[in-house]
Amino acid sequence: MLSDRISSFIDEHMKAFTGELARFLSIPSVSTLGEHAADVLAAAEWVLRQLKECGFSGALYPTGRHPVVLARSAEVPGAPVLLIYGHYDVQPPDPLDEWLTPPFSPDIRDGYIYARGATDDKGQLLTYINAVQAVLGVNGELPINLIVLAEGEEEIGSTNLGKFLADHREQLRADAVAISDTSQLAPGIPAITYALRGLCYLQIDIRGPRFDLHSGCFGGIVHNPAQVLADVLQKLKNPDGSIAIPGFYDDVLALEQWERQQMAAQPSDLDALKNYLGVCEFAGEPGYTVTERSTARPTLDINGLWGGFSGEGAKTIIPAKAGAKVSMRLVPNQIPEKIDQLFTRFVRQLCPAGVSVEFAGLHHAGPVLVNRNTSAMRAAERAIEIGFGKKPRFKRDGGSIPVVNLIREQLEQENILLLGWGSPDDGPHSPNERFSLDDFHRGIRSAAALFFELAR
Amino acid sequence: MLSDRISSFIDEHMKAFTGELARFLSIPSVSTLGEHAADVLAAAEWVLRQLKECGFSGALYPTGRHPVVLARSAEVPGAPVLLIYGHYDVQPPDPLDEWLTPPFSPDIRDGYIYARGATDDKGQLLTYINAVQAVLGVNGELPINLIVLAEGEEEIGSTNLGKFLADHREQLRADAVAISDTSQLAPGIPAITYALRGLCYLQIDIRGPRFDLHSGCFGGIVHNPAQVLADVLQKLKNPDGSIAIPGFYDDVLALEQWERQQMAAQPSDLDALKNYLGVCEFAGEPGYTVTERSTARPTLDINGLWGGFSGEGAKTIIPAKAGAKVSMRLVPNQIPEKIDQLFTRFVRQLCPAGVSVEFAGLHHAGPVLVNRNTSAMRAAERAIEIGFGKKPRFKRDGGSIPVVNLIREQLEQENILLLGWGSPDDGPHSPNERFSLDDFHRGIRSAAALFFELAR
Repeated sequence: MLSDRISSFIDEHMKAFTGELARFLSIPSVSTLGEHAADVLAAAEWVLRQLKECGFSGALYPTGRHPVVLARSAEVPGAPVLLIYGHYDVQPPDPLDEWLTPPFSPDIRDGYIYARGATDDKGQLLTYINAVQAVLGVNGELPINLIVLAEGEEEIGSTNLGKFLADHREQLRADAVAISDTSQLAPGIPAITYALRGLCYLQIDIRGPRFDLHSGCFGGIVHNPAQVLADVLQKLKNPDGSIAIPGFYDDVLALEQWERQQMAAQPSDLDALKNYLGVCEFAGEPGYTVTERSTARPTLDINGLWGGFSGEGAKTIIPAKAGAKVSMRLVPNQIPEKIDQLFTRFVRQLCPAGVSVEFAGLHHAGPVLVNRNTSAMRAAERAIEIGFGKKPRFKRDGGSIPVVNLIREQLEQENILLLGWGSPDDGPHSPNERFSLDDFHRGIRSAAALFFELAR
Repeated sequence: MLSDRISSFIDEHMKAFTGELARFLSIPSVSTLGEHAADVLAAAEWVLRQLKECGFSGALYPTGRHPVVLARSAEVPGAPVLLIYGHYDVQPPDPLDEWLTPPFSPDIRDGYIYARGATDDKGQLLTYINAVQAVLGVNGELPINLIVLAEGEEEIGSTNLGKFLADHREQLRADAVAISDTSQLAPGIPAITYALRGLCYLQIDIRGPRFDLHSGCFGGIVHNPAQVLADVLQKLKNPDGSIAIPGFYDDVLALEQWERQQMAAQPSDLDALKNYLGVCEFAGEPGYTVTERSTARPTLDINGLWGGFSGEGAKTIIPAKAGAKVSMRLVPNQIPEKIDQLFTRFVRQLCPAGVSVEFAGLHHAGPVLVNRNTSAMRAAERAIEIGFGKKPRFKRDGGSIPVVNLIREQLEQENILLLGWGSPDDGPHSPNERFSLDDFHRGIRSAAALFFELAR
């Protein structure tokens, strides 16, 4: 349910809401880079200020690194409680030279707002605050109790959130949790996500000779760490594109037939996707469709690699060291800690005695399957139909949202609503990340409708 | 022959000569980096000034990039002509954080001078100028006609030198050429190099999706350029360490039995070498000794590789591109242009359709075999025995000195004397490059003796 007056209020305030979004996006809150710590804090303060202006009570809670924003709306006795989770931190913007406009100078063109964090997750988080503003602006009160929990470490693995949740279990007690950090099925085709992939992210550092060597003097007699790295990375995959780490697939829950049929029936335009990605062919594990491979099957990707001379011209050295960042997307029922062990054991076996290898575990997150048969899920379906004018589809998502597991484990909360307002081609983590202003509008409408539908 | 007076003059002036070397080394003449162009020019001017102070006539000759220093001593009618080649440019100093003292602030400790270019090639080049100073200081005249040719592009492939030699053929007519850009066999065991490896140095650039992608959304459906790069680099080598490029070994001239016996008889301390390199085992082509593999067999090394995120922490992207610098050391009778073609054809075959690959040829140099049976070679042997107090050995060198081929081709000069004053553990191209002050001393003595022995 969304009254005409609230609907009109939202329509009339889109310019103001978009201005607020631009201000939020102009804060370079890159959580992984130490030099941006003050910006991350500024973004947290900005979120808290917005909520306080809506009459919420709350504070910033310091953690080991970046603070958690926790705020609560004025109490509505007898009404249900919705916990809204979002994150105010963003990915690093590099490669900087591929942005058409600077990542932290939001630019509006062709109906989109372009900036790092536009869709992931500042734009989506803000829809709830704007929805609160609209409902309060018209009705003067909310139909529901809201708790907003916004963290600043989502892009670095939510490392301090688990403890925070455990320490604030009572304050976080809610009837459902809404998280808008996913996307629609396709532009204009809204969706509720019921499964997420997990993540196991590691860094490999290989060291050979104790300094860079002249390749003329020593070429041919030492293990070149860059070559060892390439050899190792190549052996992580089988020639058919599947993952070669022994035991990697052991715990994978096979897709059920009904699920594969549902995925096959979903609208998808593979040529458009190829065009968007700029690739002339797809790759990946044989025996599975593109949708299955990108959402419901585990994967392994090199996220970065380095070693030796990468400057202008030629330098004839054997590098002393080389390294890579490798991450694996996991599916139910794979366990990140077990995959980490399988990975490091396998890589150690592949390295010859002439080099040393070290690992750093950078990120672990378990895969997620959410119960689709709850009254909160039905309320979310109706809210999206109101906001988007279309019933949502149910889908699996390829990404990882570690907080979902933390909420399930620490808050024993199973009513988790993954409601994506963004579009799959918004380019989260990529240069020129964007968020459609139409989706921003529909997201605010859906969020406002959700407050009423859950309260029914 | 070296008179007692010249010998004493050198001994007495070592402090001054070392001071000159320190001044020369303090000029950061890194030829490959555009930002150092003015420093490269300053180094050229420094060399020319030294020579002019010795009564040489000469000038800087502009080329497409860095100038050639060409200077000639006052004419000694009837005496033979020795062309001395050296280079005043140096390799980049990175990785900077591994230098104990800054690369362009020469530091003297434990009998060595530490700086980029100490042994390669500023220190060795300067021995000839100091030798001229000593002979003139005592005798007032030289026994021989000297031409000094010093270039500023040796570390970037001597790309403009061929044309310069062709254009100045008459001015460069000489009875022999001396080049001190190699090393002794071992510290205190002088050597004359009679073979050099060639070089074929390429850059591979692989592009996949048109921008960095979120590995959660698109992991498992596109070719990851970093993975393709690793796959390609892995397939360049066979499991036994030999090179897998089809046809790569076709033109390799097999080592003769006498040569292998001579190499086996040379003093070598493999444990000391392992210790110096900081490796617990050697690698490389089976069926050949460490000495053979590092000097007389072709090799392939990754000099650098890059792609995606290499910063602090975790970034979950599929990089849009990845690349590597790969160089192959070649031996007689391999042809760099042919190897280049075999390499690029093979890599193209290995790349899947979903990515594009581009190549940049950064450096080509042919391998070298010098005639050991000439009177100039005998004169060099005697000069080294005078300078070092020991007869030199003959050896093959693993590095490449492109100018040797250019001199043979453009000047039709076969009397090429590769006289290394440095030590194999001087660390050319590495952090903490150094040159022993004893070797500097012996090099100056040998250079002075060479003037007299060639004039006999």
